[in-house]
Amino acid sequence: MDLPYRMYYRLKLIVLITLLVINAYAQSDDSLTISHIYAFALAHADGYENLKYLCKKAPGRLAGSQAAETAVNYSFDVLKNLALDSVYLQEVTVPHWYQGDRAEAKLISPVTGTKELSVCALGPSVPTPENGITAQVVEVLSFEELEKLGVKNVEGKIVFFNRPMDPTVINPMTAYSDAVNQRTQGAKEAAKYDAVGVLVRSMTTSLDDFPHTGVMRYEENINKIPAAAVSTQDAQLLSESLKRDPNLTCFLNMNCNDHGEKKSFNVIAEIRGSKYPDQIILAGAHLDAWFTGEGAHDDGAGCIHAIEVLRTFMKMSIKPNHTIRIVLFMDEEMNQSGGKTYADHVRQSRENHMAAIESDRGGLVPLGFTIDAPDQIIEKFIAFKKHFLPCYILRFEKGYGGVDINPLKDFNVPLIGFLPDVQRYFDFHHSANDTFDKIHIRELQLGSAAITSLVYLIDKYGLE
Amino acid sequence: MDLPYRMYYRLKLIVLITLLVINAYAQSDDSLTISHIYAFALAHADGYENLKYLCKKAPGRLAGSQAAETAVNYSFDVLKNLALDSVYLQEVTVPHWYQGDRAEAKLISPVTGTKELSVCALGPSVPTPENGITAQVVEVLSFEELEKLGVKNVEGKIVFFNRPMDPTVINPMTAYSDAVNQRTQGAKEAAKYDAVGVLVRSMTTSLDDFPHTGVMRYEENINKIPAAAVSTQDAQLLSESLKRDPNLTCFLNMNCNDHGEKKSFNVIAEIRGSKYPDQIILAGAHLDAWFTGEGAHDDGAGCIHAIEVLRTFMKMSIKPNHTIRIVLFMDEEMNQSGGKTYADHVRQSRENHMAAIESDRGGLVPLGFTIDAPDQIIEKFIAFKKHFLPCYILRFEKGYGGVDINPLKDFNVPLIGFLPDVQRYFDFHHSANDTFDKIHIRELQLGSAAITSLVYLIDKYGLE
Repeated sequence: MDLPYRMYYRLKLIVLITLLVINAYAQSDDSLTISHIYAFALAHADGYENLKYLCKKAPGRLAGSQAAETAVNYSFDVLKNLALDSVYLQEVTVPHWYQGDRAEAKLISPVTGTKELSVCALGPSVPTPENGITAQVVEVLSFEELEKLGVKNVEGKIVFFNRPMDPTVINPMTAYSDAVNQRTQGAKEAAKYDAVGVLVRSMTTSLDDFPHTGVMRYEENINKIPAAAVSTQDAQLLSESLKRDPNLTCFLNMNCNDHGEKKSFNVIAEIRGSKYPDQIILAGAHLDAWFTGEGAHDDGAGCIHAIEVLRTFMKMSIKPNHTIRIVLFMDEEMNQSGGKTYADHVRQSRENHMAAIESDRGGLVPLGFTIDAPDQIIEKFIAFKKHFLPCYILRFEKGYGGVDINPLKDFNVPLIGFLPDVQRYFDFHHSANDTFDKIHIRELQLGSAAITSLVYLIDKYGLE
Repeated sequence: MDLPYRMYYRLKLIVLITLLVINAYAQSDDSLTISHIYAFALAHADGYENLKYLCKKAPGRLAGSQAAETAVNYSFDVLKNLALDSVYLQEVTVPHWYQGDRAEAKLISPVTGTKELSVCALGPSVPTPENGITAQVVEVLSFEELEKLGVKNVEGKIVFFNRPMDPTVINPMTAYSDAVNQRTQGAKEAAKYDAVGVLVRSMTTSLDDFPHTGVMRYEENINKIPAAAVSTQDAQLLSESLKRDPNLTCFLNMNCNDHGEKKSFNVIAEIRGSKYPDQIILAGAHLDAWFTGEGAHDDGAGCIHAIEVLRTFMKMSIKPNHTIRIVLFMDEEMNQSGGKTYADHVRQSRENHMAAIESDRGGLVPLGFTIDAPDQIIEKFIAFKKHFLPCYILRFEKGYGGVDINPLKDFNVPLIGFLPDVQRYFDFHHSANDTFDKIHIRELQLGSAAITSLVYLIDKYGLE
């Protein structure tokens, strides 16, 4: 080997070692920063206290409601107090449906006796006539079963969709997906066979006395019939009663009603990037919540996660290269108008988003993230995993980003969903059981820390 | 290439492919079995119902108590009903200390006023004199601080150990380890400087009004002084009051007392191995629980996990090659006499244990296992991880096995600890807050399924 070659190889070796050292240093630097982010989160109760306020002062903050307005004002004020580069409201036209002040149901049978059922309206159900409806009940577990019954067995009756979320499925999100079409499509399907109303077994594996509401869709040219969720306990009772008395009737009376549209807002705040202010890393969640509960896990916790990203960057004086923006979306639950409006704005402004992260699976103990992006981005994303090992964040998986950020897919934005443990999630989901006391302060704090750490890494290394 | 060689290579290829197919088949077979184990666990509430009974009928089942006897009889009966190959009791001599019916403390100060403090005895504390003790209080955060104060500042006083479990540590088990010497060694250390009593801040990161008890140790030739746990809320109050009035006194009155020893039992049950009955896979937990609560998470849940291993094997008709034995150990909390007695039996009988698994970190959502074994066994153990990916069991780590199985280390038994999420664990631990309503049925069921699946894999593949 001649000298120039030897020198070349020596040089190459030196460069390689230097790179390794820099890399090791950068890694330990990142580990240190992430451990500081975690310590900061675990030492501060601001997020927890803010969530308490949101739950107690603005429960049931469905888009269009007074509580939603309170939530917008409150979160705006909280963000204003962080001395960020900007905090502003983005106007959103939301549906204004009101659940009413009456949702009653009764099982009536000379055989089993009369029994009140725990029900609530699905949104945006039409009301019953003022004095309610009383009709025979036909129980089905699927749309196929409904189709087989046909008009002759369904006409004039209340269809009772009673297929449970399968408890033997390990991932409750999967069990939810497998059962939820009864709620979203049930009324429309039943109306095809001239049913007069729909009762849907609540979407939860827990046996409880809370009706769990949620969205349903009507279809043009199909009769709109009233639709209610019934608690799992009363769904069992109704099913057993039907075995004893197939001719029993149910009385259903709801005065929910549609008020057209209303003006509301997405709440947006950001820290401007020091190097690339035009490139945005978005962390979002939705501010609205169903009328039934306080929206503690769905999705107050997510809003706190997002706010805490900004608080942590500010208080720890981390200056991001790129703009860190949070969006508290309005109206995820009913019409996703906040997410659509934001995407329209992006379309017009041609703003560049490096990534969008959404937290909308509750404030339980963090396990990881799911990502919806091309494979080479997923690879880069999975490489972040090593930084999270000491924090026990181990799941970096291909998967769904989130309902509010999903329209950003049109602009090829990598979409990331925060993934906490969800074994308990459907105990609370869309019901009166989703209250602040179900939030564990450490679990909430660890969620904020995980998302903040991910934002920190994306800001530093990008995802491309 | 001549014919014999070609035939040889062809044969080799055929053998290789066959092996690959068998291996793939075996794997998918295992995945199927494990998914069935999970579905079985998630479909059955027997374990949950048994835990309810144990919590409600035998709360505070400290070794030597009537409740412990009830727990022994109940779990024996539950196991008897499973039609196992054998169910028997193993005699254990346990300490018989009784917490008494009186544990009172009061903060007395002309400046801050009088305030009752939530306290309970540590076990096995000596009682106070019948009318209690009243003494000045000196707060310390460490033994070093105590040493610096010395006899002249400590003599005749109550030492108040107030170093909190560090909330900024991500793993609460680590924070616990870092703080718990105040409880285990505090009385002994304070007595060296002629203190008359000890108050220890409860071992929990939550700010609550429950005193969290636990074990403490006296030492020969050092004066035995009474020791109590004080709730974190009252520890804060006491600390703040001391700032305002350093001369305040505390009154402490406890009639806990020592009754020497008593006879009790480990509860043991097994399914005999069809091929290697002399080789045992042990799954264990402890049946005793502190007097303060129902012992739902510590360690009723662990006992249910163990029982459910046998129920699942029986009901699913899985015939193990090796003997599957469960041991519900008595007296983990005070003197670990159940674990020691069992190890003595192993020493005498020369029984061969392939592995011992303990569940004693609560009944929360399962994350993985820790193993205490030589490296080549850890490697084999970590190779099981692939089977657990669909169950989200991702942590296979070097670590502690468990208090009860630890003496089996003398016989080179690989020791495995079940690892659930523990962020909530110290909210309950050793306090009146450890009650059945804190158990989530799915989390409990998933724990049983994880341990049963691990036992199944060890039975099939071994750990050597």
